[in-house]
Amino acid sequence: MLLEERLSHLPRICKRIYRPIQALTHLMSTDAIQRAWQIVDQIPGRATGAYSHSQGVKGLRDTIAAGIEERDGFPANPDDIFMTDGASPAVHNMMQLLIRSENDGILCPIPQYPLYSASIDLHGGFLVPYYLDEATGWGLEIPELKKQLEAAKSKGINVRALVVINPGNPTGQVLGEENQRDIVEFCKQEGLVLLADEVYQENVYVPEKKFHSFKKVSRSMGYGENDITLVSFQSVSKGYHGECGKRGGYMEVTGFSAEVREQIYKVASVNLCSNISGQILASLVMSPPKVGDESYESFNAEKENILESLARRAKTLEDAFNKLEGVTCNKAEGAMYLFPQIRLSQKAIKAAGDANTAPDNFYCKRLLNATGVVVVPGSGFGQVPGTWHFRCTILPPEEKIPAIVTRLTEFHEKFMDEFRD
Amino acid sequence: MLLEERLSHLPRICKRIYRPIQALTHLMSTDAIQRAWQIVDQIPGRATGAYSHSQGVKGLRDTIAAGIEERDGFPANPDDIFMTDGASPAVHNMMQLLIRSENDGILCPIPQYPLYSASIDLHGGFLVPYYLDEATGWGLEIPELKKQLEAAKSKGINVRALVVINPGNPTGQVLGEENQRDIVEFCKQEGLVLLADEVYQENVYVPEKKFHSFKKVSRSMGYGENDITLVSFQSVSKGYHGECGKRGGYMEVTGFSAEVREQIYKVASVNLCSNISGQILASLVMSPPKVGDESYESFNAEKENILESLARRAKTLEDAFNKLEGVTCNKAEGAMYLFPQIRLSQKAIKAAGDANTAPDNFYCKRLLNATGVVVVPGSGFGQVPGTWHFRCTILPPEEKIPAIVTRLTEFHEKFMDEFRD
Repeated sequence: MLLEERLSHLPRICKRIYRPIQALTHLMSTDAIQRAWQIVDQIPGRATGAYSHSQGVKGLRDTIAAGIEERDGFPANPDDIFMTDGASPAVHNMMQLLIRSENDGILCPIPQYPLYSASIDLHGGFLVPYYLDEATGWGLEIPELKKQLEAAKSKGINVRALVVINPGNPTGQVLGEENQRDIVEFCKQEGLVLLADEVYQENVYVPEKKFHSFKKVSRSMGYGENDITLVSFQSVSKGYHGECGKRGGYMEVTGFSAEVREQIYKVASVNLCSNISGQILASLVMSPPKVGDESYESFNAEKENILESLARRAKTLEDAFNKLEGVTCNKAEGAMYLFPQIRLSQKAIKAAGDANTAPDNFYCKRLLNATGVVVVPGSGFGQVPGTWHFRCTILPPEEKIPAIVTRLTEFHEKFMDEFRD
Repeated sequence: MLLEERLSHLPRICKRIYRPIQALTHLMSTDAIQRAWQIVDQIPGRATGAYSHSQGVKGLRDTIAAGIEERDGFPANPDDIFMTDGASPAVHNMMQLLIRSENDGILCPIPQYPLYSASIDLHGGFLVPYYLDEATGWGLEIPELKKQLEAAKSKGINVRALVVINPGNPTGQVLGEENQRDIVEFCKQEGLVLLADEVYQENVYVPEKKFHSFKKVSRSMGYGENDITLVSFQSVSKGYHGECGKRGGYMEVTGFSAEVREQIYKVASVNLCSNISGQILASLVMSPPKVGDESYESFNAEKENILESLARRAKTLEDAFNKLEGVTCNKAEGAMYLFPQIRLSQKAIKAAGDANTAPDNFYCKRLLNATGVVVVPGSGFGQVPGTWHFRCTILPPEEKIPAIVTRLTEFHEKFMDEFRD
């Protein structure tokens, strides 16, 4: 439908608004305008001010399901999509569902994004830790999963689910496909729900790694709805878009019985629905401009620019950390973080104790006070006892990174000198 | 600052966009434009795409606090405001805080908006019911509160808080100020947190009643931070605005210790922040155009039109219900609902039993199938055992109300004839 026709159908549109809107739309690509109309048509009431279906607007879920299909090459069902205000409420919904008592456990990576520890705590469950192997680039090793699962079982913990964050937060690793298959097999055999945090799926920076969704991996192994229970979390807050203030996100839930699905829906419906603008953004994230669209080239150039810049920032910071005395830093293959390990002297550890704080906190606070650079102590994410880390984001503007590296390096040298044993 | 100056400061603004935007802004009132710039200036980064402080953008909370001060005539502190995606997450945050075990109880009105029963259930607490008195226009009677509190205590329930919904959902009553003082006194004496659901504060339809916030009432009694612990919930979803798809809301928390406040903040921060557009709307709801503003007259006319129309709809439906055989309906003083009682025949009750459903469900489903009119059975809200009700919203377009009344009346007559004992 032409803009003229469209406008004539819209009530309350003042005729005087027509010309400037027309002038603005002449500046936009035809596919963007078409998409905007398509979205307006998908929303009952053609506006963003009313509640939607508690899973999100059906038409937008159709778009997301189509996007998942295109990404994975396997079918996706719009009824499996639950749209949420960012991914966090989706994680809470799952913890609500899975945790029945303090004897219910959830396998979580250490280090982990603290949403998981917080949500498990808030829902009264038990976090069963499994350690990522720093020596193999934060590898997720199946024997470690098995060991921790058995240890939990022997303590009477009923382990219900496995959380995997891929690409990793705070660790920045990207899982290999072979490894993912082993994880799927492990969940299938142990009857665990696989909670796949895939919010960094667009953020992969190294040519030798690719993002594969756990849905794609499990389907390519021939496992369907009846073989594995899988939840994938996605968000508009990450990727190359990073629209975190919009609070858009969704989870795709597969492999649950109809009865359990009904409970997921019931919990979702308590809060009525997620915000409609966030829902629209989530649909856009999963259906970006395509080859042939008028906007494709400029879209793609901007996307590639952002991702290439993030990759350069990650590499620069990684190299800088690895040059620091006593610091080692794994490759940032994806996500938005580096998680270097810092070996602190006994003198520094004692000074931290005297200041009544953990050694990594001590280091990070000193860094902040000396340079204004904020990094987050490893304690907030968990780490192998006796090791110390911090999480550093790769998000500062690229032109500021050299100055950050200089300040950080200067601080570190002074710190190491001050606390040399 | 002039628009010209402003635009020159905005990066990424294409020069070609300038003219149409200028043309559009000429159509807007100066106070609206000023407000828009003010909001842009209040948001760090001047855009809605980034996370905010977990309580919400500070400048927007300043605006809300100022709005509360103007409404109540008593000081409000922006640090007491927690902005949320609609009011529901705020209610969950409070239940999370207050409920420690299944022995912790929350006094809730019956009938009640089922968010409360759901949230108490999800957090593993105990709903302590108190019945609103239908005979006195859904009155909230202190002796009933005392009776139910004592009964709960004698069962070993540790009652932590009192939920009051004012104006009432689903019951539509507006509390008198005297009654509110008694409620405040009751909470103070019993050491209960007063959870005041005040999302319908703009929706009062009768001249003899006015909305008074519990904060105002308690402050006017001379009770401050140290005397009473009070939480007020507000939303952009109701009022004359009804922008429920935007998911904006907040709670104002007063009277908690610094230690408890920190826990509230901690829980809020798990989800990072609420959506920024919803935050902006919440600030607008609490600071509408003022006398002297260019837009005031048109704003006020639209607001009054909406509220007067809602009042007429409420009255029409109330009168229609009261004309039906076996139906009585209290006055809709506020909110957006009527909650008529329907006296069903033994024959109808038996038919419902045969259909394996509650009598009110049976009536509502028959109504839906016969007329397409949706009302919600009283069972969903709670009611005195042996009585049957349904909730009817006053939101259908005013011009459709007469047809709804006709269809409803016709259905009701036939239903009563069919099931006459």
